[in-house]
Amino acid sequence: MNKIKFFANEISPDMEGQHVRVAGWIKSVRDLGKIVFVILTDREGELQITFKKGVVSDELFSKIKKVNLLSAMIVEGVVKKAKTKYGYEIIPEKVEIIPAEAPLPIDVFSGKTELSKRINFRTLDVRNRNIAAIFRLKSLIIKAARDWFYQNGFVEINTPVIGLYVAEGGANVFEVDYFGRKAYLRQSPQLYKQLMAGAFEKVFELGPAFRAEQSYTIRHLTEFLSLDAEIAWIDDIDPLLDVLEKLMIHIVKTVRNEGKIYFELLEKELPQIPDRPFPVMSYEEAVRILKAAKIPLEGKEIPHIGEKYLGDYIKKKYDTEFFFITDFPWEIRPFYTMKYEDSPNPSTPTKSMDLLYKGMEIATGSQREHRFNLLVKQMREKGLTPEKFGYYLEAFKYGMPPHGGFGIGVDRLVMQMLDLSNIREAVLFPRDPERLEP
Amino acid sequence: MNKIKFFANEISPDMEGQHVRVAGWIKSVRDLGKIVFVILTDREGELQITFKKGVVSDELFSKIKKVNLLSAMIVEGVVKKAKTKYGYEIIPEKVEIIPAEAPLPIDVFSGKTELSKRINFRTLDVRNRNIAAIFRLKSLIIKAARDWFYQNGFVEINTPVIGLYVAEGGANVFEVDYFGRKAYLRQSPQLYKQLMAGAFEKVFELGPAFRAEQSYTIRHLTEFLSLDAEIAWIDDIDPLLDVLEKLMIHIVKTVRNEGKIYFELLEKELPQIPDRPFPVMSYEEAVRILKAAKIPLEGKEIPHIGEKYLGDYIKKKYDTEFFFITDFPWEIRPFYTMKYEDSPNPSTPTKSMDLLYKGMEIATGSQREHRFNLLVKQMREKGLTPEKFGYYLEAFKYGMPPHGGFGIGVDRLVMQMLDLSNIREAVLFPRDPERLEP
Repeated sequence: MNKIKFFANEISPDMEGQHVRVAGWIKSVRDLGKIVFVILTDREGELQITFKKGVVSDELFSKIKKVNLLSAMIVEGVVKKAKTKYGYEIIPEKVEIIPAEAPLPIDVFSGKTELSKRINFRTLDVRNRNIAAIFRLKSLIIKAARDWFYQNGFVEINTPVIGLYVAEGGANVFEVDYFGRKAYLRQSPQLYKQLMAGAFEKVFELGPAFRAEQSYTIRHLTEFLSLDAEIAWIDDIDPLLDVLEKLMIHIVKTVRNEGKIYFELLEKELPQIPDRPFPVMSYEEAVRILKAAKIPLEGKEIPHIGEKYLGDYIKKKYDTEFFFITDFPWEIRPFYTMKYEDSPNPSTPTKSMDLLYKGMEIATGSQREHRFNLLVKQMREKGLTPEKFGYYLEAFKYGMPPHGGFGIGVDRLVMQMLDLSNIREAVLFPRDPERLEP
Repeated sequence: MNKIKFFANEISPDMEGQHVRVAGWIKSVRDLGKIVFVILTDREGELQITFKKGVVSDELFSKIKKVNLLSAMIVEGVVKKAKTKYGYEIIPEKVEIIPAEAPLPIDVFSGKTELSKRINFRTLDVRNRNIAAIFRLKSLIIKAARDWFYQNGFVEINTPVIGLYVAEGGANVFEVDYFGRKAYLRQSPQLYKQLMAGAFEKVFELGPAFRAEQSYTIRHLTEFLSLDAEIAWIDDIDPLLDVLEKLMIHIVKTVRNEGKIYFELLEKELPQIPDRPFPVMSYEEAVRILKAAKIPLEGKEIPHIGEKYLGDYIKKKYDTEFFFITDFPWEIRPFYTMKYEDSPNPSTPTKSMDLLYKGMEIATGSQREHRFNLLVKQMREKGLTPEKFGYYLEAFKYGMPPHGGFGIGVDRLVMQMLDLSNIREAVLFPRDPERLEP
């Protein structure tokens, strides 16, 4: 397109004399009486605009002296070498201002406003490039992940958000009024990616998923971004671990190559490229280690402090931040999980796994039960009604291949990579039981 | 990963003697008594597996003779040159079969089953590579679009599906029970992408959007895939036309380079690369042309047959399939659309545009009203309550840049590129007022 504007990082001293259009938000105004220095911030950096009395119109000059911070400004002007920290300044010829009210509702550049207020005014908040860096990195991570899937023969699919099936249990599902009928928001694209693995063989999908959980933790949201994959013709979970390892390594490598600036802005260290294979620990072993450390389970679930303890344990033992827990017992995995053997015993181990990163679960997966009769049996064991899974279940009568897959919580991955203290830092407009706005 | 299987297009006669693992679904069985030829279809092509009496076990041999079509089969065997249409056959050594019931609920390979039944059994349906080609092409189109946005400095964003705001008018919005509160599914990411253009300057998002419309046409669904972009610092709609032209040309070029096979499978012609600029017609001009052709408007809206007529008109006049209609009157555009001048007159032209492709709207956009006072005024003119737009509206008090953008209906783009007769052909699991399953 005809250049709408130059970004701050596209201007350099060797453009001396060139006419440019730049734009951004006013970060500071230094008024020296007959000369006013305005620093504009845009997505990519900072720009100095120098207003001199007599050079610009009197009207503009007095307007600039009174302009509020974070007003938007479009400047057409000329680049001039100068002893500024940028090596140049811009001498304005034509200026348009879209004023900001004062005072500002949040302190954009100190980053000291509490998170909840910052989210209310997210537009202002992400004009701070240090905050924006979180979302630039997230965008890069998503791109890296998709590139890996494309390069490795996965077909991208798009499956519905509204539907009749409840894949992950009924308690935490949002209900939609669908022309007077009851419908539900997906808790995951689980059933649909399985159906598609039964034809496209290797699929992935990135999209929103929903859990109606009344929980207010630093790592749960009611709407989250889920990166899902599903692979046909597998015999066990090894290919899933393999894919997750390669995918994570590709993401870390991409981030190191193309995302350095975001880590600099955030004053965080770049992640290390993990060695393969990632350590693997069975659920049984994990429970043993936690028992020895006197950390109790929550029912059969490993609690968050348990995950953290195991993360530290693995870090100390293997100096790595990624590891797998496998073979969870049947009673804490969903109906579609394949068991090692057909047994109704709630402790029966399943062909399942979680990927933990810095002591937090960021992905969960399994081989799926593809045999019609066993799948029906497993639904019943979980107290589900097979009839409610109509066409999903029907598909298993017609040559459904053995398959398995996983879902990655993208927001959590970003949170852990940057050591953010709250998942809401990694989501532009987070949703929790109290927050529906903006 | 360790190779799970070879796809059909990865096997060639020069692999003579090589051990391979292949898998797919049984497309045909030719039983010559002492030899049985099985054709497997997988995502990428077809494979011949040759079973000879005495070479395979008697048990397997008699099983193969009775196997049902569309059963899944995993074969470990040896590639052997042969005078088949593929130039080789595979001699099985180890075979696993996941049987399909008979009869099949749809006729997968004739493509003659009615669409509605095919959708019920989508897994089976897309084992037909000619059907799958639609979705492989869709995946390619999405990838091409995203690549273009990345290459042109857009930041990918992910904004929420559930929220309090109703962007596009209240009649056709789905309601969600949000812990006892009323919330809504987004009709578009409109308000959120605007908020983010106010900081990231150029953004795009791909995700689901929802319209609770009781309409049963061949081009409407209640859930659709929307590709949205928003750009700051623009003065008029020209940069939007510019971006859309370049994006469409990039998509067509990518499809021509990398998607030829899908068009071959579907027996469709590759799209031509359109010339720039695309023809532009004002709404007024469009109305004049339709009047001359005695095609009445629907209120002020151009009806579908009108779009079709204009598409033919442009095709005849300029030999191109893409064109823009601009400057729609205020009364048929949403509250956030910028008017050419501040007037409450319902016929006031707006800085708006639609992109039509083969006589169907596939994208719609506008410059947005970024001035707080005018935006409030426009909300009131549309009968909306500004107070309901809380933090969205608040952001416009603090230096919101001039901006604009568009949304593309991805399903429609695919439909039009392939001349499909129903948008349901372009969506894996379509949703309409009657269909919520599978």
